[in-house]
Amino acid sequence: MSCEHCSEKKTIRKEEDKKKLISRINRLKGQMDGIRKMIEDDRYCGDVLIQLAAISASLKSLSSVIFENHMHSCVLKSIKEGDDSSIDEIVELFKKFSWKKKNLM
Amino acid sequence: MSCEHCSEKKTIRKEEDKKKLISRINRLKGQMDGIRKMIEDDRYCGDVLIQLAAISASLKSLSSVIFENHMHSCVLKSIKEGDDSSIDEIVELFKKFSWKKKNLM
Amino acid sequence: MSCEHCSEKKTIRKEEDKKKLISRINRLKGQMDGIRKMIEDDRYCGDVLIQLAAISASLKSLSSVIFENHMHSCVLKSIKEGDDSSIDEIVELFKKFSWKKKNLM
Amino acid sequence: MSCEHCSEKKTIRKEEDKKKLISRINRLKGQMDGIRKMIEDDRYCGDVLIQLAAISASLKSLSSVIFENHMHSCVLKSIKEGDDSSIDEIVELFKKFSWKKKNLM
Repeated sequence: MSCEHCSEKKTIRKEEDKKKLISRINRLKGQMDGIRKMIEDDRYCGDVLIQLAAISASLKSLSSVIFENHMHSCVLKSIKEGDDSSIDEIVELFKKFSWKKKNLM
Repeated sequence: MSCEHCSEKKTIRKEEDKKKLISRINRLKGQMDGIRKMIEDDRYCGDVLIQLAAISASLKSLSSVIFENHMHSCVLKSIKEGDDSSIDEIVELFKKFSWKKKNLM
Repeated sequence: MSCEHCSEKKTIRKEEDKKKLISRINRLKGQMDGIRKMIEDDRYCGDVLIQLAAISASLKSLSSVIFENHMHSCVLKSIKEGDDSSIDEIVELFKKFSWKKKNLM
Repeated sequence: MSCEHCSEKKTIRKEEDKKKLISRINRLKGQMDGIRKMIEDDRYCGDVLIQLAAISASLKSLSSVIFENHMHSCVLKSIKEGDDSSIDEIVELFKKFSWKKKNLM
């Protein structure tokens, strides 16, 4: 309640931020449609794989934007209010996104 | 022409393989819709990021299936027919997907 | 000076933590020696690559340990003392380690 | 026996290639020593992490060189001699290095 950004498990976003995020998501969906069309048109596997790599890059870029906002709003705020649990959350996210033991390279 | 799988830059896929791939792509689009809904509903960033990681995993799994088919059909065939250029293509894909110098971890 | 963990660009580590980290680093060097021996002995490329993947996993595991300590000591402390700059540092690290635009998959 | 590059599980490398690979490995060991020194000197975690990311990049670059040689020698040769098993090996390596289901991003 005392936090304008996060209450419990909510992140209140500005309308313009929402719009930007949703526009990125729609573009990603458009890229997925492109892949489907490539499959339907029997396009060469090598070309499909290159497109999939591009989608993966867009997805990471989107994750990065959300992560950055998260750090500057929710995480910073909760620590200043004396709740350190978001630190453990970030550590978990870091492991999930890049350092799983199984994530060999 | 002499290759049933690849002619020039085409990969002719069996109807059932196409169906499976398109069903995976549709599931990915569904997951993207889920993310959009999370953003619209002001869901907690941490939860959105975990979902994005799951989508990234699905995308890699799809890429892996296409890569495996590609190796067993197009690449194997072209080498046996004396065309070694697909080897370079695989090396390039390997770099694109995992070993870019900029891909630090 | 006011922070027992970090002063300027220092991270004061406990002796036992140092020992553990250095022991991991020594193990990594041992693994590198193993790779050198494999090359000298003309071992099969495929086997060398599997070993290199294992080393990469060890390296990530080490990075993960250091990151976790960093979050719980330096980052937490500096934020509580009113210095938010470590938040930007973490965002940069996150990008470096997992989300570079060029890091396609 | 019939293959100059691979016999059973051996990869015969040219002396100059060996030298280059071993020189890269030695450089990697030097970088590891640098990390140990940073830990001993209580250097700031953030700086240690940036160095670890650089080592990870060097390791990938080394893996990439070995992979490229492998594709152009062992894999190409074995397929031309009618042994397709190296295709499965490459698919496995691809999964190990970049597309593990657990490798979320």
